[in-house]
Amino acid sequence: MHRTKIKVVEGVLDANDTIAAVNRADLDRAGVVAVNLMSAPGAGKTSLLERTVTALPGVRVGVLEGDVQGTADADRVAALHVPVTQLNTDPGFGGECHLDANMVRSALPSLPLEQLDLLIIENVGNLVCPAEFRVGEHLRVMVSAITEGEDKPLKYPLMFRACELVLINKIDLLEHLDFDLDRFLYHLDAVHPGVERMLVSARTGEGLDAWCDWLATRSSHVEAPA
Amino acid sequence: MHRTKIKVVEGVLDANDTIAAVNRADLDRAGVVAVNLMSAPGAGKTSLLERTVTALPGVRVGVLEGDVQGTADADRVAALHVPVTQLNTDPGFGGECHLDANMVRSALPSLPLEQLDLLIIENVGNLVCPAEFRVGEHLRVMVSAITEGEDKPLKYPLMFRACELVLINKIDLLEHLDFDLDRFLYHLDAVHPGVERMLVSARTGEGLDAWCDWLATRSSHVEAPA
Repeated sequence: MHRTKIKVVEGVLDANDTIAAVNRADLDRAGVVAVNLMSAPGAGKTSLLERTVTALPGVRVGVLEGDVQGTADADRVAALHVPVTQLNTDPGFGGECHLDANMVRSALPSLPLEQLDLLIIENVGNLVCPAEFRVGEHLRVMVSAITEGEDKPLKYPLMFRACELVLINKIDLLEHLDFDLDRFLYHLDAVHPGVERMLVSARTGEGLDAWCDWLATRSSHVEAPA
Repeated sequence: MHRTKIKVVEGVLDANDTIAAVNRADLDRAGVVAVNLMSAPGAGKTSLLERTVTALPGVRVGVLEGDVQGTADADRVAALHVPVTQLNTDPGFGGECHLDANMVRSALPSLPLEQLDLLIIENVGNLVCPAEFRVGEHLRVMVSAITEGEDKPLKYPLMFRACELVLINKIDLLEHLDFDLDRFLYHLDAVHPGVERMLVSARTGEGLDAWCDWLATRSSHVEAPA
């Protein structure tokens, strides 16, 4: 006698992860590598982007700008003649402090994905919640400005763990601060041992060649969906 | 003929506001003025506190340190022999990016309120959500470091509107940055016209006398509950 075998499926994915996977599949189909760029307010994400989007020869770049309110950052990027969409978390979502997969879902149709190789998603400036929400990106990069102090990896460990690369920005100010770079790196390795890191200055351009190489290499190696 | 008049009460307060009012009543009963100190990560709240708590003669100060994780800031303040409680939003609350009234409620019994005149509540470093949650405080002060750029009032308007005083910190770095102070002040007045502001440096001590006077004046004028 045979008993019908009943399939049991566990609902292990939450809604955000489900939508992130759908975003990721759309990006993969279009051959676009997406980078989720995160930092505290004022760490220099947009200044880095201004230097980056025009310094990637042969890579077609688009930008998704996440902000609570306003289009200031999108305006700065659009001035460089790059496809850009501003995604505000204020009116439709209640002033969220981070992007989530569903917000990005609503913004993707406004970008010409078929004409892009790389999409940089600039998250809302915040060191807590953005690290908790995947949006469909392939890579996560965080910017930590040395003006914020050496203790930030210890105080916001999830953010420093949730990224493949840490850009240590405003390095041009090192001589004017009491910032102890070795101490910062020690804290960084304590929460995310060996994570790739680069010393950069969006102001002077120091270190940006390595960052642009990193991006260019990865945006030509998009993987097909499994 | 008389009809019984039925009282209709609207449930206009959310739970957070209700608990904030209870916290406030406890603080008032104990004669303690509470200041909710908010900023982005690394703006210098703790460094300001280190300079402040020992510079208020005759004012008995306590500190409530809000952080996602760790006791680094509480350790720094405790070294100054001031009553301090560390309130972590990570284990019990799921890694919240802000303090709310209920978290502060759970921390209040650990502080010797009857022996304090002033309680400084250092919020989690974040320019979005802390502005949305009253915790029972009398005054809200935010710290904006000039290293964060001139555009922050426009990008995080609720935070800049939700405070009685803006401390513009790291002013000692002005000559080393491209920061345009007039432009920052213009943006500040655009979102919160005329809000009180002070230029300070937690590093050099510049401007801290005015800040300490501001605190000392207010902590001797606690009002009884209505």
